[in-house]
Amino acid sequence: MATKETDNQQQRSSQELPVVLVNRLPSFRLPSKPPFEDDLLSHFHLLDPHDSPEPYDYFLSRHASSIRALITVGPTPVTAEFLNLLPCLGLVVGTSAGLDHIDLPACRSRGIAVTNASAAFSEDVADCAVGLLIDVLRRISSADRFVRGRMWPAKKEYPLGFKLRGKRVGIVGLGSIGSEVAKRLSAFDCSIAYSSRKKKPSVPFPFYANVGDLASNSDVLILCCALTEETTHIVNKDVMIALGKQGVIINVGRGYLIDEKDLVQCLVRGEIGGAGLDVFENEPNVPKELLGLDNVVLSPHRAVMTPESFEALLQLTVANLKAFFSNKPLLSVVSNE
Amino acid sequence: MATKETDNQQQRSSQELPVVLVNRLPSFRLPSKPPFEDDLLSHFHLLDPHDSPEPYDYFLSRHASSIRALITVGPTPVTAEFLNLLPCLGLVVGTSAGLDHIDLPACRSRGIAVTNASAAFSEDVADCAVGLLIDVLRRISSADRFVRGRMWPAKKEYPLGFKLRGKRVGIVGLGSIGSEVAKRLSAFDCSIAYSSRKKKPSVPFPFYANVGDLASNSDVLILCCALTEETTHIVNKDVMIALGKQGVIINVGRGYLIDEKDLVQCLVRGEIGGAGLDVFENEPNVPKELLGLDNVVLSPHRAVMTPESFEALLQLTVANLKAFFSNKPLLSVVSNE
Repeated sequence: MATKETDNQQQRSSQELPVVLVNRLPSFRLPSKPPFEDDLLSHFHLLDPHDSPEPYDYFLSRHASSIRALITVGPTPVTAEFLNLLPCLGLVVGTSAGLDHIDLPACRSRGIAVTNASAAFSEDVADCAVGLLIDVLRRISSADRFVRGRMWPAKKEYPLGFKLRGKRVGIVGLGSIGSEVAKRLSAFDCSIAYSSRKKKPSVPFPFYANVGDLASNSDVLILCCALTEETTHIVNKDVMIALGKQGVIINVGRGYLIDEKDLVQCLVRGEIGGAGLDVFENEPNVPKELLGLDNVVLSPHRAVMTPESFEALLQLTVANLKAFFSNKPLLSVVSNE
Repeated sequence: MATKETDNQQQRSSQELPVVLVNRLPSFRLPSKPPFEDDLLSHFHLLDPHDSPEPYDYFLSRHASSIRALITVGPTPVTAEFLNLLPCLGLVVGTSAGLDHIDLPACRSRGIAVTNASAAFSEDVADCAVGLLIDVLRRISSADRFVRGRMWPAKKEYPLGFKLRGKRVGIVGLGSIGSEVAKRLSAFDCSIAYSSRKKKPSVPFPFYANVGDLASNSDVLILCCALTEETTHIVNKDVMIALGKQGVIINVGRGYLIDEKDLVQCLVRGEIGGAGLDVFENEPNVPKELLGLDNVVLSPHRAVMTPESFEALLQLTVANLKAFFSNKPLLSVVSNE
C-alpha cells in the first residue's frame, strides 16, 4: 500500500514537471546509472515512446503539443520529417560530441536550439587520440600481441617504433577536442599546426586553410572536426599522399571524415605509415583488410566512454534543460548558421 | 689494389686512435646503423673480443694494458672479476638508462667513472610510460583485440575505461625519466606526487619518503627508478594493497622493482586494477598468467627503442668517450657514492 501511494505521488508530481521527449533508436538507451536517471527524473517528465505500448506515431501525436524539448540519445537521427511531428519543439539536446545525425538546417529554419555534449567528452576524446597516437608510433598494441603470442623468447627483437618529440602534428578541427589534443601533445614537444573553417585569432599555432597543405607540412594528422557536408571525405587519397609514407592518421571524429577505401589502400600499399582509428564509415563493421595490419590500432568508437564522462554528460544535459525551461542561456549551444 | 691500400691505411690510422673495448654478450651488438659505427670508428679503435678468433681471456689479457675505456652494450654485465682483468680501465660507458648490470661499488673502489644513457632515452621511456597508462586506463590494446577478433558487430558494447583527468599519479624515482613523465601527465590534469631517495627541493610535487605511503595516496604508480639493492621488490603485496582495487601500476624501470609473484596474484585476484609492463623479472619470459588478462598491457622491454634514441645514444657515447680521452668533464657521469 505504502509503495502504491508513493508511486501515485511520483506520478502526480512528474505530471507537473516540464516534459522532455527521449528520442532513441530501440537499441540505444540513456545511461541507466541511477544518478543519471534520478537527477533527470526529479526535474523532468521524460517521455519515451519505446516504453509505451502505443504505436510510435500515435504516442508522439498525442503528446506533441506538450513537447518543447527532446534529448536525442547517441546517434539517434533527428530528421526534418521527425521535427515536423513536434510543432512546439524549441530545443534538441544532443548527447554526443558530433551532431551529424541532427538535421541542423531544419532546426535553424524552425528556430530550434541545439546543444551538443563536446564539453563533457572533449578531455576523454583527446586522451584517446593521444593514446592512439602513442600506440601507433610506439607500436604498443602490436607489441602486446607479440608478447601474448609468446614470440618474445623466440624472436628476441621487436621492430622499433618512432619518437613523439618533434613530430609535426596537424589537427583538423581545433574546437574543444582539438584544443585539448594540442595541450597534451605540446607537453610531448610535438609541434602543432591546425586547419579549421576559420583561422582562430587567439591561437598561437600555424593555420592552414587547406587540409592538403596541412598534411604536406605534418607527420601526423589528427581528425577532431565535426562531420558535415564540407568535411565528408576531407581526407582522401591526395591528402594521404601529401602526408607521406611515414605519416600517421588518427581519427577520433567520424568515419566519413576519411575516404575509407582510400585509407585501406594507402595503408595496405604503405603509402602512409599507420593509423589509429576509433571510428569507421560503416560501424560496427571494420574493413577486413585492416584486421591483419600491425601499423593500425582499432578501437570500437569508444573515445568518449568513461564513467566520469557519463557523469559530466548528465550534468550538462540537466543544466541545458533547466536553462531552457527557465529562459536562461544554454550551456553548450551549437552555433547553427 | 686500391681497396687493399685503403684497408691498410685504415688499419694504420685506427691503431693510433684511443682504444675502446666493446663489452657485449654474444647475442648483443652495438646498433649497426652506419652512422653509429662510422662515427665511433672514425674516433676510436674498437676492440671486440667476439670478433676475434682468439680465446676471450687471451684476447683481453693481450690488450689489457691499452684498454682505458669500455662500452658495455645493453645489459651486458660488468662484474668485479671482469674489471680485475682490466687494470688500466678508467671509464665504463653504459648504453642503457639503468645500470644494475654494472658493479658500481667495484667501479667506485677502483676509481672508474661510469656514464649512463638516461639522457638519450628519458623522453622515449616517458612517452612509453604515458602510452602504457592511457592504454591500461582506456583499454586501447584490449579494445584493439576486441575489434580484430570481430566481436564488435556481435557484442556491440565494450567495457568502459577510466578517465585520466584528476588521477593521482605517484612517480617512484623522479630522475630524468620520472620528470619527463610528470611533465607529460600534468598536461592531462593528473595530480603528481613522487618518492625518491631524497626530497627534491626544486620540485613542486608532494614527496613521500615511503613507497607504501605514496601508493596509499595514489591511483597510479609509475616506476621510473634505478634497480639497486634498496629498490629490489620495492613494490610488494603491501604496496599493491595500499594502491587498491582500482589502482594501476606502470613499470618502465626494471622487472625486479616489483615482486612479480605478488603482482601476478594481485592482478589475478583483482586486488589491483591493472598494469602496463615493459619489463619483467625473467625476460624474455613473461608469467603465463598475465597473457590472458585484459587489464594488462605487455611490452617486450622496448620503452627506449626508437631510431631517434639510438642516434642520441650514439652522440652521447661518442661525446663521453671524447671527453674522457681529452680529460674534459663527462656528459652523463653517474653519481656513484
